[in-house]
Amino acid sequence: MDQIQRTLLEEVADLHGVPAGAYNIRANGQMAGRNTTANIDIITKEDKSGIDIRIKEGTKNESVHIPVVLSQSGMTEMVYNDFYIGDNADVTIIAGCGIHNGGDAASEHDGIHRFFIGRNARVRYVEKHYGEGDGKGKRILNPTTEVTMEEGSSLEMETVQIKGVDSTIRKTVADLAAGAGIVIKERLLTHGNQDAESSIIVNLNGEDASANVMSRSVAKEDSRQKFISVINGNSRCAGHTECDAIIIGNAKIQAVPELTANDPDAALIHEAAIGKIAGEQIIKLMTLGLTEAEAEEQIINGFLK
Amino acid sequence: MDQIQRTLLEEVADLHGVPAGAYNIRANGQMAGRNTTANIDIITKEDKSGIDIRIKEGTKNESVHIPVVLSQSGMTEMVYNDFYIGDNADVTIIAGCGIHNGGDAASEHDGIHRFFIGRNARVRYVEKHYGEGDGKGKRILNPTTEVTMEEGSSLEMETVQIKGVDSTIRKTVADLAAGAGIVIKERLLTHGNQDAESSIIVNLNGEDASANVMSRSVAKEDSRQKFISVINGNSRCAGHTECDAIIIGNAKIQAVPELTANDPDAALIHEAAIGKIAGEQIIKLMTLGLTEAEAEEQIINGFLK
Repeated sequence: MDQIQRTLLEEVADLHGVPAGAYNIRANGQMAGRNTTANIDIITKEDKSGIDIRIKEGTKNESVHIPVVLSQSGMTEMVYNDFYIGDNADVTIIAGCGIHNGGDAASEHDGIHRFFIGRNARVRYVEKHYGEGDGKGKRILNPTTEVTMEEGSSLEMETVQIKGVDSTIRKTVADLAAGAGIVIKERLLTHGNQDAESSIIVNLNGEDASANVMSRSVAKEDSRQKFISVINGNSRCAGHTECDAIIIGNAKIQAVPELTANDPDAALIHEAAIGKIAGEQIIKLMTLGLTEAEAEEQIINGFLK
Repeated sequence: MDQIQRTLLEEVADLHGVPAGAYNIRANGQMAGRNTTANIDIITKEDKSGIDIRIKEGTKNESVHIPVVLSQSGMTEMVYNDFYIGDNADVTIIAGCGIHNGGDAASEHDGIHRFFIGRNARVRYVEKHYGEGDGKGKRILNPTTEVTMEEGSSLEMETVQIKGVDSTIRKTVADLAAGAGIVIKERLLTHGNQDAESSIIVNLNGEDASANVMSRSVAKEDSRQKFISVINGNSRCAGHTECDAIIIGNAKIQAVPELTANDPDAALIHEAAIGKIAGEQIIKLMTLGLTEAEAEEQIINGFLK
């Protein structure tokens, strides 16, 4: 791996070298490193691009890193990764994709991640997206995440897109069996002429399934964002979704939540707020010696933390 | 007017006889009474079914009643009513439609109401829908309301559908100029096998336009409801929409709000909650001597008040 790739790796996976535990590093469409453990196997798919990650029943406190870096301008790839998490496992999965585009052609990484989470298993999934490079070529990332959660399982999903991604269409769909719980935290910042669309659909199928979907986003300059959050309550269940968004400059933000109660014991709540930073917040920080831009930056950082 | 029609009139317009002020009573597709005043004119349309209501500039503290009653089974009508409200007027408009269907054919009243509200005019608009009758024929009401609000005008719109309407598709669209404000309060109860869909679209086009859209609904038995609330913030403006819904029995409720900020100074907020009545509320009232059904009834009445 070269210096650019190493920088991307740091940005998307906080990795300064080879991670501990299982990992699979993909660079410019090729495997750049892999490690498996006694409990976590990683197998290259034979029918298409991508990997199967198989985590044994009862695996505790282990992690899997599967970062992707793209530094070759004009490259487009589609990757299929499937995660099979055994019953009662408790693991952390860190994905992420960084694109450095120094050329004029678009670089695009599309990924379809499928999670099959076994009974009473607990998964923490972190996904960070980042773009850089001074080429005119666009940096495009389209992640699709499909989650099937068995009884009593839980997933905490944290997705972050902070900088440099010109266009993204995020799709997340989760189906939850009885007693399963999902928490999704999405943080998104767009700037320049970027576009971002995120749709999250959660189907609370089993009794006492629960969902908490939280989106925080900042749209700066001429960027555009659309956030769709759908919760379908198909049994006795609890669902909450909230979307807080800050507009700066000429940005446009759209929030479309959708709550459907198909069961009289479904309890569903939604909240959304779109607005700009309150003037008094800026002024307060400016009296402490910050410039207006610095004050704005500080507030945004706190909001997206 | 016969006794059935008089009962309907009471239900939809709280009228025990001829109202004070201007009115136009429509019964089974025919004019059953009309009164105009020095400031309020009512003119029958010549090109289609319906009336024009013209309210002079500066008219204060006057009211217009335009109830519609349908007691003939199998009748379907489409009515176009246009309201022209002069600058600085301050008036109350009471519409409403009651259907008594004693036969097996569907009775349907569709109305398109257009409001043109002049500068700084204030309008209170009340619309009540009601159905009764033991025939198998459906009672169908589809109201469309289109509102154009000039600078500084205000509209308070209150719509109520409490009972007996088998199917309704409500459509409300409002366009607001600078400084105009709209408040929409919708109350809806469905039961049996009824269907209700309500979509409210508010376009906040002018500076400091504001909207407050509040929906409270109860879906009982096997009824289905869909509530769509769209606020488009196209300038410096403030928009708030909330939807509170109670499910009882096997009813299904869907809430789809949509907030779009096309201007960095648009401040938009949405809240929605769908759920059933908390068990402890019922129990509390039952300890006071009410049966479970009575307790439920009491809570619903309070909620829809």
